Amino acid sequence: MRKSYADYKKHLQQVHDLSVAAAILSWDKEVNMPINGAGFRAQQVATLNGLAHEQFTDPDFGTLINHLLMVESDPQDKRNLERSKSDFQKATCLDRAFVERKSKIVSIGYHKWLAARKENDFSIFQPALAQLITLKREEADKLGYADHPYDALIDQFEPGYKSAQLDALFEQVKTELVAFVRDLRAKPTVDDSFLYHFYPKDKQWSFSLDILKNMGYDFNSGRQDISPHPFTISFSPNDVRVTTQVNEQNFATTCWSSIHEGGHALYEQGLPAKQYGLPLGQACSLGIHESQSRLWENQIGRSYLYWQAMYPNLKKLFPEQLRQTDLDAFFKGINKIEPHPIRIESDELHYHFHILIRYELEKGLIEGSLEVADLPQAWNSKYKDYLDVDIKSDNEGCLQDIHWAHGSIGYFPTYSLGSFYAAQFFAQAKKDIPNLEDTLRQGDCKPLLDWLRINIFAHGRYYLADELCEKVTGERLNFRYFMDYAKAKYVQVYL
Amino acid sequence: MRKSYADYKKHLQQVHDLSVAAAILSWDKEVNMPINGAGFRAQQVATLNGLAHEQFTDPDFGTLINHLLMVESDPQDKRNLERSKSDFQKATCLDRAFVERKSKIVSIGYHKWLAARKENDFSIFQPALAQLITLKREEADKLGYADHPYDALIDQFEPGYKSAQLDALFEQVKTELVAFVRDLRAKPTVDDSFLYHFYPKDKQWSFSLDILKNMGYDFNSGRQDISPHPFTISFSPNDVRVTTQVNEQNFATTCWSSIHEGGHALYEQGLPAKQYGLPLGQACSLGIHESQSRLWENQIGRSYLYWQAMYPNLKKLFPEQLRQTDLDAFFKGINKIEPHPIRIESDELHYHFHILIRYELEKGLIEGSLEVADLPQAWNSKYKDYLDVDIKSDNEGCLQDIHWAHGSIGYFPTYSLGSFYAAQFFAQAKKDIPNLEDTLRQGDCKPLLDWLRINIFAHGRYYLADELCEKVTGERLNFRYFMDYAKAKYVQVYL
Repeated sequence: MRKSYADYKKHLQQVHDLSVAAAILSWDKEVNMPINGAGFRAQQVATLNGLAHEQFTDPDFGTLINHLLMVESDPQDKRNLERSKSDFQKATCLDRAFVERKSKIVSIGYHKWLAARKENDFSIFQPALAQLITLKREEADKLGYADHPYDALIDQFEPGYKSAQLDALFEQVKTELVAFVRDLRAKPTVDDSFLYHFYPKDKQWSFSLDILKNMGYDFNSGRQDISPHPFTISFSPNDVRVTTQVNEQNFATTCWSSIHEGGHALYEQGLPAKQYGLPLGQACSLGIHESQSRLWENQIGRSYLYWQAMYPNLKKLFPEQLRQTDLDAFFKGINKIEPHPIRIESDELHYHFHILIRYELEKGLIEGSLEVADLPQAWNSKYKDYLDVDIKSDNEGCLQDIHWAHGSIGYFPTYSLGSFYAAQFFAQAKKDIPNLEDTLRQGDCKPLLDWLRINIFAHGRYYLADELCEKVTGERLNFRYFMDYAKAKYVQVYL
Repeated sequence: MRKSYADYKKHLQQVHDLSVAAAILSWDKEVNMPINGAGFRAQQVATLNGLAHEQFTDPDFGTLINHLLMVESDPQDKRNLERSKSDFQKATCLDRAFVERKSKIVSIGYHKWLAARKENDFSIFQPALAQLITLKREEADKLGYADHPYDALIDQFEPGYKSAQLDALFEQVKTELVAFVRDLRAKPTVDDSFLYHFYPKDKQWSFSLDILKNMGYDFNSGRQDISPHPFTISFSPNDVRVTTQVNEQNFATTCWSSIHEGGHALYEQGLPAKQYGLPLGQACSLGIHESQSRLWENQIGRSYLYWQAMYPNLKKLFPEQLRQTDLDAFFKGINKIEPHPIRIESDELHYHFHILIRYELEKGLIEGSLEVADLPQAWNSKYKDYLDVDIKSDNEGCLQDIHWAHGSIGYFPTYSLGSFYAAQFFAQAKKDIPNLEDTLRQGDCKPLLDWLRINIFAHGRYYLADELCEKVTGERLNFRYFMDYAKAKYVQVYL
């Protein structure tokens, strides 16, 4: 048996190299691959992922981790080993037969979802979803939990987070945010029609590159491309790529998706390169990852301050389209709130009602208090309650998201956690950097980025999300920061 | 131990998936990777190649091949096993210590070559090259040979081919081609100045796509991109990519490099997909691969016939640049011959003198009849003899190619073999397809491509190169076909 920390590091980095290779093949598939390449590509990715899993779960590796944990004293190395031990346990508690069965059921689920989408008919997806839910309950049992099976599932995305915490959080969303939004909607509406003029593709593209550069995204360690769905992917801190879409009829599509993905990418570019492939070289959690994209998208990218610096450039680029829109009107327009049946079309406040609904429903499905057959009706009735929206079809209702079809249960809440962490982090940054608002008003993002690098990026997975939050802000996640942020901003938007 | 052919196939395809992943990472490096990505990318590729080698050389796999060879009766499956057995023997006869030493010496060689290029001074590269030659002799001894150590080295690129055959072939080059070219050079020169007008990038690009389409390259199973050095790379028969360069001051750069790479790519797209990852799904040899690129580049791409169809389009695209150039003048210009000290700048006839020189020199180095210290002088004197060219510096002399610095000895001859096979195959195609010239004159490449698919592509590695040549043309490689082709063409160019 190998004995040293260097052996552990080498093995884990090799596993990571395989996962990165699979990621590069996936990026290539979205961005470059000719259509006929799909069949063999799927096989190639499966081989890489299979080998990565096989090598990671090698029993000798588990033994090595346990051995090193007894002798290692360096705190960073020890933390890597602790995280790896936990990863190893999660990866090995699902036996091969279960993993293969899961892979099949997920594949069926995905194809049935596609078929159901095509026919706009949930009943086509229903039996597959029922199978998926049964499977996820079994998975939760295998992974283990103390209080609620849902805890085992959210732990895969937000390690250590519990449904009891989510219950408390969403209770606040229901009381405070629902009431706040109701009040806003009683006020005169805001005009955002300027977003829907014709914005030529090339100019939108060059503006999105400018804004990424301005944020501090390093194009020597990354690039932006076009893909059907925007995403960020990292092959090392020195090669972190973003993708976006361009819609010439909607200025918002590219601009805020670039900023959002840019926020994810800054995090990945800022992870410590010397910890490549090891837990401390990885992002803390999905919620913390999302906090970075949303902080840039909303706290910066939809702020009056930042557009004081950027709007003159934008207006120079699109003089016709923005002729009648001054900075005030622009700021209000990009912050317009309006209920919408589709999550990804939602504004930043209503968004959390969409997540709240999914959380309540998926938790109900897992604990058995909601039957799959009753899902559409439960979905539609919650949309009526929380958003006052009438759902007209399954496609604009419970078939809209791919997540459940992919077997991802416990993922949705990380989107809301991200927004709430973002508000709390940003409030702290303002305290720590006294002239932060001045720098942003001048379009200088460096002080903020440096603060994020030191306080968040540099730690990798050293802390769990809640621990990181406490270390950075002095307290665990507190919904108050999001409400304070929302109130301060929307009083400017809805007078 | 696993027992079935299906196990063999699965294992070999998995190894192939790893190699393909490494290839995709390399393609991405050339085409897309941001500059800072280089360090981790090198490590990722090394992991993939290392794992592929480790899995391929697994002793159990060798045992499985030997076992299956005794029981397999299907001729195709049996041939796969035979080729794999030979590949396995070659891969395993070099022990790990040797492979690691080789990797280090090659790495030093490459960097010393770069440094020597920078200073235009062979003496900087000389000690490293001496080490490389010693290493290659050792490699030849380990690989084994009957007559000449060089045979073991060429076998890595052109399986089964011997230096005795090359001696005979290049003897003919020396007597027949040298004399023929000398006669041509006594005739009035040809004007190719029209190639050096300004040709805008976008139009060159779109023309190169048109010509690839016209050849039969399938863009649903491939794509063309820009890279510093043109190359073709295959990730499966359904995803075969080419790259090119664009030089706005030289029309030839893009056009014939696209045709050349397109020829390689048609071969890869035409390999049997059901043999993916297995020997019968792979190209026969480097020489046969090069025969495909050169057949398209020269027999088609520099023929009067084909430009009868394509030239009107080209002239429509570049009316100003080609205003004073009719088809006859175009045909002559693109076939101008002129000695040049640099191999890759050479015309299609002088080219083989460059190869002949490299062959004589590398064979001399390996057998010990030439000392590394004497290389520049030997190089320059041969260029004077065969090309009547005075070499003015090491950079335009023996430092011009990267091959030796990469440890590739025995590779150069495959370029000439490719041209000679191309002439012989094309002569046969003309016999087998009575109206071939008519179809080409109409710009219809399909009959030729279909003939290549059936006669060459479909076989993969079923035959060795010389066997394939005999099967297709009724005889082994015969230099006469190349001379006949050259004579028939150049009598039209040099009146």
